[in-house]
Amino acid sequence: MAKIRKAVTVILRLIALAATVVAVVIMVTSKETAHVLNLTFTAKFTHTPAFKYYVVAEAIAGVYTIVALLLSSRSLLARLILILDVVVAMVLTSSISAALAIAQVGKHGNSHAGWLPICGQVPHYCDKLIISLVAGFVAALVYLLLLVYTLRAALSPVFAIKS
Amino acid sequence: MAKIRKAVTVILRLIALAATVVAVVIMVTSKETAHVLNLTFTAKFTHTPAFKYYVVAEAIAGVYTIVALLLSSRSLLARLILILDVVVAMVLTSSISAALAIAQVGKHGNSHAGWLPICGQVPHYCDKLIISLVAGFVAALVYLLLLVYTLRAALSPVFAIKS
Repeated sequence: MAKIRKAVTVILRLIALAATVVAVVIMVTSKETAHVLNLTFTAKFTHTPAFKYYVVAEAIAGVYTIVALLLSSRSLLARLILILDVVVAMVLTSSISAALAIAQVGKHGNSHAGWLPICGQVPHYCDKLIISLVAGFVAALVYLLLLVYTLRAALSPVFAIKS
Repeated sequence: MAKIRKAVTVILRLIALAATVVAVVIMVTSKETAHVLNLTFTAKFTHTPAFKYYVVAEAIAGVYTIVALLLSSRSLLARLILILDVVVAMVLTSSISAALAIAQVGKHGNSHAGWLPICGQVPHYCDKLIISLVAGFVAALVYLLLLVYTLRAALSPVFAIKS
């Protein structure tokens, strides 16, 4: 039982790691230059604070996932890792939500605020962004699954005795 | 020890409940009409999908917090409540992050995308938004504290035995 639990945890962490790597690499390489009338403008993630936060958060989550994979055999650290898993899950959720909110404005604009959509001008940039955001969404979802799985498995005897 | 743990949990939930109520009420009542040249425009939260999501998410978290306060004495439900706490913490984190990302554009604009700031035209709307977002941030933070506190307290004997 403990072996299955460990295997599931490792698989979920590997999926989350792959997702964060894809999210960061695609976002960082998503530059596109457009020519509208006589104007040239470039779309890249560093122009948007929410996307910069997204890249940093996904990178931190990726690095943490590697450390957690390496350390998860040390039982003394299990409680610390679980609490850090909660924090990383919230960081991933936060970053994908902020990035999605801005991407939604980029795609559809906001007529009330006078913000025009930009995806018509830089379609390849937007396509890459969508791939990156799907990967970031997967990473957050996998961390939620990981937490629910760990808590379900680990807490069953505790609450029967303690609460 | 169990009594202190319960008291801390109840206090944290009450703070989270108050914060979500403030977040929803202030956001919902944050309408402002501005007159620029001969044009009249109204700023309200329903114009922005991220703010609508924010209100719905904070309201759900508030209602859940009331239910959790009422049910937390039933020990059989403790594990379910902990898992729902994780989900609600992620929902709160997601909603405040999405709302903050849009509020940042509303405050500072994004010159690269051609999105102008709107807080100059509707300063009272923006002031109310800031209060609502601070409350939403407090709610998410309190849920993170609640999770860390519960996990730290509940898991101490488990991992020593099980992992």
